[in-house]
This record gives sequence, structure tokens and C-alpha cells, in this order.
Amino acid sequence: MNDGYTPMLTDLYELTMLQAYLDEGMADTAVFEFFVRALPPQRNFLMVAGIEQVVDYLATLRFRDDDLRWLGQTGRFHPVFLDWLRDFRFSGDVYAMREGTVFFPNEPILRVVAPLAQAQFVESRVINLLNFSCLIASKAARCVLAAPGKQLVDFGLRRAHGAEAGLLAARASYLAGFAGTATVLAGKHYGIPLFGTMAHSYIEAHEREAQAFSHFAASQPNNVTLLIDTYDTEAAAAKVVALAPELRRRGVSLGALRLDSGDLADHARRVRALLDQGGLPEVRIFASGSLDETRIAALLANGAPIDGFGVGTHLTTSADAPFLDSAYKLQAYAGKSRRKLSEGKATWPGEKQVYRVREENGLFRHDVVALSCEPPPSGHSMALLQPVMHQGRREPPLDPLNTLRQHAATELAQLPPELRQLTPAATPYPVQITSPLRALAHKLDQQAH
Amino acid sequence: MNDGYTPMLTDLYELTMLQAYLDEGMADTAVFEFFVRALPPQRNFLMVAGIEQVVDYLATLRFRDDDLRWLGQTGRFHPVFLDWLRDFRFSGDVYAMREGTVFFPNEPILRVVAPLAQAQFVESRVINLLNFSCLIASKAARCVLAAPGKQLVDFGLRRAHGAEAGLLAARASYLAGFAGTATVLAGKHYGIPLFGTMAHSYIEAHEREAQAFSHFAASQPNNVTLLIDTYDTEAAAAKVVALAPELRRRGVSLGALRLDSGDLADHARRVRALLDQGGLPEVRIFASGSLDETRIAALLANGAPIDGFGVGTHLTTSADAPFLDSAYKLQAYAGKSRRKLSEGKATWPGEKQVYRVREENGLFRHDVVALSCEPPPSGHSMALLQPVMHQGRREPPLDPLNTLRQHAATELAQLPPELRQLTPAATPYPVQITSPLRALAHKLDQQAH
Repeated sequence: MNDGYTPMLTDLYELTMLQAYLDEGMADTAVFEFFVRALPPQRNFLMVAGIEQVVDYLATLRFRDDDLRWLGQTGRFHPVFLDWLRDFRFSGDVYAMREGTVFFPNEPILRVVAPLAQAQFVESRVINLLNFSCLIASKAARCVLAAPGKQLVDFGLRRAHGAEAGLLAARASYLAGFAGTATVLAGKHYGIPLFGTMAHSYIEAHEREAQAFSHFAASQPNNVTLLIDTYDTEAAAAKVVALAPELRRRGVSLGALRLDSGDLADHARRVRALLDQGGLPEVRIFASGSLDETRIAALLANGAPIDGFGVGTHLTTSADAPFLDSAYKLQAYAGKSRRKLSEGKATWPGEKQVYRVREENGLFRHDVVALSCEPPPSGHSMALLQPVMHQGRREPPLDPLNTLRQHAATELAQLPPELRQLTPAATPYPVQITSPLRALAHKLDQQAH
Repeated sequence: MNDGYTPMLTDLYELTMLQAYLDEGMADTAVFEFFVRALPPQRNFLMVAGIEQVVDYLATLRFRDDDLRWLGQTGRFHPVFLDWLRDFRFSGDVYAMREGTVFFPNEPILRVVAPLAQAQFVESRVINLLNFSCLIASKAARCVLAAPGKQLVDFGLRRAHGAEAGLLAARASYLAGFAGTATVLAGKHYGIPLFGTMAHSYIEAHEREAQAFSHFAASQPNNVTLLIDTYDTEAAAAKVVALAPELRRRGVSLGALRLDSGDLADHARRVRALLDQGGLPEVRIFASGSLDETRIAALLANGAPIDGFGVGTHLTTSADAPFLDSAYKLQAYAGKSRRKLSEGKATWPGEKQVYRVREENGLFRHDVVALSCEPPPSGHSMALLQPVMHQGRREPPLDPLNTLRQHAATELAQLPPELRQLTPAATPYPVQITSPLRALAHKLDQQAH
């Protein structure tokens, strides 16, 4: 799989619609917006992520000759269309919320303004990219809220859904406040700090567990983490204590012991006692094994002396909510607002802006979804959709990942307290729809089609 | 994302363990096996998929110069190791179950026999590939069982977890019996039949719905599918009936109408009546919208006159079970069997084979997991793990996808009836562990480490 950014990663209907638009000469400007219709039952908020990937995709969109040949031989497309596809580029304007921003249902987080064919064509991949990155950032943010001051590391590559999911989950979780990832490629691509321990197989390949510890420490002497649950967790901790003087002599700095199975709170307490009694109070305890925000919160509430957590499968699949009810919808074409009425799926029409109104101390008070032509609401408010592309170029440049990560931390700190809990808030965060927007929706509902 | 097959898509610990193995001179042959520990609660069986991707990964594994430079500047690896990585290739033997084969917990579906470092290193990506493809094939197989004789199409790219998930889900669902996919790249890469309709935005971009139908049909005259729920489903069906004579004159063959919202059974009945009364009995009804195997079964049990289903989000995320409890574990090293004892995660040790014992009529009777050195069980049985790589080369060649798809259909036809239901079987399918395998596990448990 080395075709993440090929335009061929799309739904067939995008191409058949484009041919129809070309045949009909429909080339006026369209406005599409990406938003989420409703929160999954277990979420109080969502976090924006994946904007950089969307911008990269749009800025580099082009069909290759072999794509056009292949499309030609399907018999579905005529030569005039295929020629036109050869020069197909994205030349539109894009507005987006900054990555790391907290958002809520019915709020567009991305707006694409471009000739109809361009704005339509990118639908499949834009949803594919934003849905997943927002999903993981939102899940990771819950882990961060559950474990204040603890080190959280993404361990999820192996159960992530394929290569790109593993890579983007590392990025989205780091954005949301994780300390880093085990995924090497994410370190290389995004500069995310890398963490790693050892596998059970490493221990098993040695005749003696203590020998495995000693050899691994010799090869990775700086801040090494040893995995101690292969056979008997406390017996292994005792072996580490016995090895410690020799390791110290050899210049090894022992960073942490890792627990990966059994009753993690109970093991952590026993291992902590063994380490403290053995003169190793500085060695930390790191836990992993089917963890998610709820289990982490329970371990910490239980007083488990755990300093860091490896979060894998439940993070990178967002296991309790593996998708968002997201959509990328036409809001205006040729200067006229548009609205889909499908039962249960009606959308707010027109080109919109989202404003966040804050308390004096910065805490979120409420959001306002307005038509983009309306004046901003009074009070301490800020327009959340800002330009990220101008006429197909990346302009202004996006912030680096570490800046976005600080923004995400500020956002989480300014969430109303009831939204910071893992359980559903009694009342959802207020998102107001302005009167002009409601009036426009009502007017469009009266039209015949 | 264009690095799906780079060895840098791995966990950091694979590399740190390799350096330690090199430092220690541990280079004997290791046996690793991939298996699933337990079925998700909603599954009666699983289906093998993703073997071709694993073989491609292993056969092409190599580090590039810029990878080695990047690893060098992390300060974690010494020059001797990085030089050794430059020539690192996979030179082992691999055995696998054929894709499309049904499998059960504790049955290895892939066995890797290679020098320790090679067999260890590939763990992260082997799990990443097999876990996802098996997950989706297993979910898709349930949809196929729920909708005998119906056309099923993968519509899931937009909510799949990234690019590779979208592509591999199209492949895995086609393998399991889907008719095809909407994902263009899957058509190009794998030759999977493509299906597509139109988006609501296409309808909305036109002033009149009937005009949109007419224009789209003109541009896609062969077997066109029209989406009719943008404003009012039955009103749209009536417009199609009114348009039909003109479309026929223009040579358009109307294939199907698509429903995407509301009470699908109710709408299908009303639309079917409108089509039949309008002289269009040959036009089919295609449904989509948050479908999974349970909703499809309910629609069909309700007598809904639906001919085909687009299955999206719930398929490509395997929403009710978004991961498998899968593992890739060391079973033997340097000729000695190995066993992990971690609480709740103990594994069956040694190099193993899986036999399927069948009834006279071909139906599965039970499976046997044995040491590979044991004779096959008596009766009508077959060894399921077969060679797919020899000394790092693809040998013998894998079957083409359409052959594997036929194999999958045969497997589903030979499932015991209680496993073909969507609800959990009262008794799980019997997987017997042989006495020699049990004895080996017991013996290893007695060893000190």
C-alpha cells in the first residue's frame, strides 16, 4: 500500500458525478463543509485532527497517466473527460478549525470553497482522513483527562486498521497530549518521541529471565524498561532488584518495569514495595494490557502506584466508538444555499462560521453556529474557521505539531468541568444556531424540487 | 502516507531487541505463530485474509539509506547494528492457511520459521496486516450469510481508518463474498468489480431533482442507479417513473433506485409498488445507510423487496468488534519449545499444525491443533497450514483472489448450521488440543526461568 495520496483512493461515484458535471457544464463555485452530526454516546466533546493531512492531499492532487489508462479501459468514461482529468487540480479556498481545537456536533470544522467538480471530488478522502484523526484525538483526549500528570504512550500499531491508521493514530494521540508512541515511522515522519520496551518473546528466547534482563540492559543502557510478567511478575521484580548493583556498575540506568497482565493495581503495589525495599525508589512502574481511559481512571482511583501507561488497541481503534457520524455536505452552489432533507439526516444549509464564546477566565461558555455573512456574536468570542488554503496553495502555513499540541492542552484546560468527566454530561454543551440560519433552513424547506 | 511497506512501520522495541540479539549473537532459528486467543462475543467463526499482504511485506523487506541515517541520529543504535540492518532481509519459511479459510481460536493461521531476528522483527506489521484483514473478512462473511442471493457492495472507504484500511477492507469483503466495492483503487489494484451511484450533493446542485436524474442517466447510460431520498423518497420514485419513457428513448438502461434513509423496508415496499405499477418491474431496489448484518437480516425477515445492499461504516470498522484478540508468539527457539505464562495470556507452545476433520458431506466436524511433528488425526482430515514462502521467496505462488473467493464460499457452505447464525452458537465449534501438545505445555510449565 503506497497510494494514500493518489486520487484513485476515492468512491466511484465521485468520478461518475464529475463526468456528468463536465457534460452539463456545471462549473460554478460550491461550498462544502465537514461536520459531525452527533456525538457517540460515550463522548462529551470531540477534538479536531487531520487538517494537515487534508491540506497535503488537496495540494498534491493529480491523476497519473496509468490511472487515466486504467479508468479508460473500464468503459465508464469518455476521452474528453479523461483528458480533462489529466489537468485536474485543486484550486479552491479552504477554511478549517485549528488542530487540537475542541468541537461539537453540527459545527463545520472544514469548509471547502471551489469549483463544483473539485469540491465534490475530494469528499471521500476528506472524510476518510478527518473522521479517523478526529476519532483518535478525541479518544486520546479522554485518556489524557483520565491520567493527569502520567506518561501516556501509544502502543496501538499492531491492532490499528492498517498502515496509515497506525501512523495517524500516533500523530493524533500525541496532538491530544500523549507523551509519544512506539511507532518508529511516526518518529521519523512527525518527530514524535519514541518509547519502547521488550517483547515476551525476548525473555522466552533466553534460558533464564535474569539473563535476558541483563543482556537487554547492556544493549540499551539509557533509561531501559524491562518487561516482568512473562512468568511470575513479583519473582521477576526480585530478580531486577538482585541485578541492580551489577547494572549500576556497568553504567545502566534502569528506567522502569513494565506490567502487562493480571491485576495491574495489585502487581503495581507489590512491585513498588519490592523496588522501594530494594533501594530502587527511582525506578518507575509502567503498565499496559487492554487499557483504555476507563481502566486507567479505575487504576488511579484505586491508588495503583503506576507512573505511565501504554495504551494500544482501545486507543487506535477507538474501540468503544470506532466511527463518527461525520459528513461532508454541499451547503451552497452558484451562490444559492442548498439543503438535504433526508429523514433524520437534514443539515444546516449555507456557508457557515463557528464562534466560541468564553467566560472571563477562558472557560468555554457556549458556541454559536452562524451564516458566515452574519456579524460575530457579542461578548468574548472567536471565529474558529480560519483560512488554510488560498487558490489551491497552502496559505497561511499551518502550525507545527508541537504548537498544536500546546493548543490542545489549553483547550482541554478550558473545557467546562462537566465535559471533562468520562461519563456523559447531564446536559450537552450548548451550541446555538442563529436565527438567520434557522430562517434560511426554513425557507429552503419550503422550496419545491 | 506512502510507506505501508517500509520496515520503519514497526514498534521501537523490534529494533532494540534486534540490536540486543546481534550483540548477544543469538541467531538460531525461531518459530513464531499468529493466532487469535478468543472470538469476539458476536462471532461464531473467523475468516483468514491478508496472507498475500504479509507475503508481499516479507518478500520486499529492506531498510533504505535514509531510514538508517534517521535511526543513527536517534542515538539508540550503534554503527555495527546499522550496517547489519542495511543487509537485513527476510530469508525464512512461511506456512499459512489459505485466505478464505474459516478458523477458530488458538489455531495458528500463519507460521514463520526464520533466524530469530527476522522472525521477531516482522511481528508488528504481520499483526497489523492479519488482524485487520481477518477482522473485515469475518464481518463481511456474516453479511454474506445474512443476505443469501443478494448483491452486497462495500461502501465503507470514507469511514475506514485511513487509506490502507479502505483498500484492504474492499479486498477482504470481496474475498468473503461481497459483489464488489465503491473504492476505485481496489478495482485498479485487485480487479474487484466497482459499483457506484450518486451523492445527495449531485441532486442538490441541480434546481430540479428530475433534471439531476435525467442528466446523470445521460452521462452514465448503462445500468444507472439513481439516489431518491434527498427530499421525498416516493415523490422521487414517481419522477423516475415519469422520466422512464424518455430515458428509454435515449438508450438509458435504468438499473436500480437507491434508498439511503428513513424506514428502508417501508420505503422499499412503496417504491417497489410505484415501479411495478409504472411498468418498471426490472428496476431493482438498492439500500444503504448504517447497515450491518443484523439490520440486513431484519429487513429481509420483514419481507423488504430490496435486491442489494451497500454496507459501509459498520463493515469497514467492524463496528461491533473493531479488533481481534490476536497475537504473534514465539513457539520455539534453537530447537526448544517456548511458552509464555502471563496470567490469562498463556499460549500453546511448540511448532503446530491445524487439521480440519469433516463429515462425509464435507461439513466441518471438528478441528485438531497438534504439534507439527505428530501424525495427522485419523478420518477425513486436512492440514490447514501450507507453505507460502521458502527461504524468503514466494513459493509456491498464492492463488488469485477470485479463486480464494470461491474457496471462501465453499467454506461458508460447509459451516455447521449453528455457526451460520448471527447469534452466538450454544456450544462453540470444537477445537481439540492433542495430548502431546498438552503434555509439552505441562512440561514447560514446570521449568524454572
